[in-house]
Amino acid sequence: MKFLQTIKVEEFKTLLDSIPKIELKEEIVALEEAYNRVLFEDVVSPIDVPHFRKSRMDGYAVIAEDTFPAEEDNLIELKLIETIPAGEKPQKALFKGQCSYVATGAAIPKNADGVVMVEFSEKAGEKILISKAITPGTHIIEVGHDIKKNEIIVKRNRMIDLATLGVLASCGIRKVLVYKKLKVGLISTGNELVSDNGRELDIGKIYEVNSKILSQAIENTGASVEFFGILKDDFNELKCAIDKALDYSDIVIMSGGTSKGEGDLGPKVLEEYKDKEVMVHGVRIKPGKPIIFTKFGSKIIFILPGYPTSALSCFYVFIDNFLRKNTGYPLKETYSKQLEVGERIYSPIGRHEFKPVQIKNVNGVNKIFPVKTGSEAISTMFYADGYVEIDELESIIEEGEKRRVYFF
Amino acid sequence: MKFLQTIKVEEFKTLLDSIPKIELKEEIVALEEAYNRVLFEDVVSPIDVPHFRKSRMDGYAVIAEDTFPAEEDNLIELKLIETIPAGEKPQKALFKGQCSYVATGAAIPKNADGVVMVEFSEKAGEKILISKAITPGTHIIEVGHDIKKNEIIVKRNRMIDLATLGVLASCGIRKVLVYKKLKVGLISTGNELVSDNGRELDIGKIYEVNSKILSQAIENTGASVEFFGILKDDFNELKCAIDKALDYSDIVIMSGGTSKGEGDLGPKVLEEYKDKEVMVHGVRIKPGKPIIFTKFGSKIIFILPGYPTSALSCFYVFIDNFLRKNTGYPLKETYSKQLEVGERIYSPIGRHEFKPVQIKNVNGVNKIFPVKTGSEAISTMFYADGYVEIDELESIIEEGEKRRVYFF
Repeated sequence: MKFLQTIKVEEFKTLLDSIPKIELKEEIVALEEAYNRVLFEDVVSPIDVPHFRKSRMDGYAVIAEDTFPAEEDNLIELKLIETIPAGEKPQKALFKGQCSYVATGAAIPKNADGVVMVEFSEKAGEKILISKAITPGTHIIEVGHDIKKNEIIVKRNRMIDLATLGVLASCGIRKVLVYKKLKVGLISTGNELVSDNGRELDIGKIYEVNSKILSQAIENTGASVEFFGILKDDFNELKCAIDKALDYSDIVIMSGGTSKGEGDLGPKVLEEYKDKEVMVHGVRIKPGKPIIFTKFGSKIIFILPGYPTSALSCFYVFIDNFLRKNTGYPLKETYSKQLEVGERIYSPIGRHEFKPVQIKNVNGVNKIFPVKTGSEAISTMFYADGYVEIDELESIIEEGEKRRVYFF
Repeated sequence: MKFLQTIKVEEFKTLLDSIPKIELKEEIVALEEAYNRVLFEDVVSPIDVPHFRKSRMDGYAVIAEDTFPAEEDNLIELKLIETIPAGEKPQKALFKGQCSYVATGAAIPKNADGVVMVEFSEKAGEKILISKAITPGTHIIEVGHDIKKNEIIVKRNRMIDLATLGVLASCGIRKVLVYKKLKVGLISTGNELVSDNGRELDIGKIYEVNSKILSQAIENTGASVEFFGILKDDFNELKCAIDKALDYSDIVIMSGGTSKGEGDLGPKVLEEYKDKEVMVHGVRIKPGKPIIFTKFGSKIIFILPGYPTSALSCFYVFIDNFLRKNTGYPLKETYSKQLEVGERIYSPIGRHEFKPVQIKNVNGVNKIFPVKTGSEAISTMFYADGYVEIDELESIIEEGEKRRVYFF
């Protein structure tokens, strides 16, 4: 067992990257439920698309050879034998001197090998006059032009987006084999937390926030969430909940119980487990220094700080893309921009800070300003536009310096 | 009534921009259901946050004056009278010469006006030795520091994102008043369409795709979708379905039935209605030239082309942000990039083309290539990375020219 006390941001990121993808099982879902799921296997088309020859235009299906002499001043006369709307099966094969009207998308009759656009025709009773020569194949979409039967149309591990959904539907696929969702167990801890919004608060109590925002944030990565409740700071209660959560989930995310105070049991409970592989006790970051990470064989536990602002920013910086890697969702690219600092920013030495900042327009120039409230304030999360990273060894960023802002 | 035959892209965009926002009614939803809904009214906090004075640190709550003489070589002795964990109500008020242990987030006892961090203390039986002077207010979070009671915390028209959800939850808000969802009625038309994936296809028939991809695309804008079925090209059937859809919905989106073929009834049915305000018969674009648009008093109908690739690209270019404007969702910003064209691209004169393109890496440089299949092919949508816009009067873009690619 590797037991690491506190480590640097970069070490933690490297550690997370080195963890192999959790192997998820498969399940069958109906196509209607398949949007944003991730394919477990290559999908092969059961049909040719189109599965019949069809017209690309409104016009007349003809035997191309019949039209070869046609010119604007030399109209060719063909006998109209059928009108084929889209969706109908042609009833008559075509022979020399004949034509059939075909709507866009309609099936081409037997023997026809080209379509003359309506624009190059004139109707004269039962006769159609053609003013343009066409070569064989003109305006005909051949069988399998778009997708061939038994061809692999979508590869495994692709997330089913709108275009994929369209391709699958056009091949008549009803059900697909997708990865089961990654299961994340969520736990909130703290004697001060009250779950029931709207109940009046006693002195010392606060409304619980983390389960509400983290469960949504986790679902956004394509995982499913099971909430194991708000727990008191009680060793046995916590141990029991973690056991249950580990049993159910691939990954457990706890919040609260990570600082050094007397009531913080999370790390103590985790130390009890014998089958840990790696245990990181804290990452030297601000806000939320004590992010605990433990790996049990193939299962992983994160403990995030209790303050919602800290919990959510730790989630965004470390866990969001870690979950996406495991669910198969595309990784989130952080949008960032180099801007000038509009006011001196302080940061503690010895911790890598993700400093929440606001962008304000000063005389037409966007500049970076620190958010005045700290990580204890929920409004910090609300008013911050993004964050700047401040190295462990930096304590001051001067006004006028250029810094990269990472937007939320 | 303004009746416009075919108009340019820019005219159509201007027309859409000029339509006032549809007025949506309000409804109450529980906070758990409120994620990604849009607030109908300003939200005011029913409580101060925090609603009690609390400690920012693990340490000792003191009367600051008691510590004034304290220095590293002049320890001040205080009597520990209580230990206050987070979540507990202090039982004892503090008097001169006394202190209480407070965990991070714990309530500050009466009379205390500062907290000395554990780091500057030593325990000696019942006594606590303090080695640092503090000023009043040190490490105390005052009542309402984060959010003040009766303060507006979130303004109307804001979409409830994770940070907003956190702020609302921390104020103990249980229910919020949000806009009802914009109602979109969806109709697919075409005799050739078969709804039941997996059923074997007759010659002439194809699987219906548009309802599956458009309903998802519409839901992504925050609207709700009601599907009014796949309709045959029958005047009365279509008229009846449009009546029903108009009755139910704020906006009706139909696909199919827009080209000039004999089976295309959509525009004919719309012309029957007497209460149209504006009617656009076609926008000169490719793919999907005949995008029909009609406004009935406060209701709007769009008819998109039948090919899924054309329908979806028309949706993205014109309708997506139009719906978002009405649902209150943030508008989608198209990510675009200037790149070199890697192969000559052709485009018809007289239509503004949204040409699907692929980006390929040629000797380390990303270049633009046209997608070979046309809008009739579902795979076009699948393989395209984005599109370039080609003006009505342009017919060729030469290899080597620089063009802006808009990514999907």
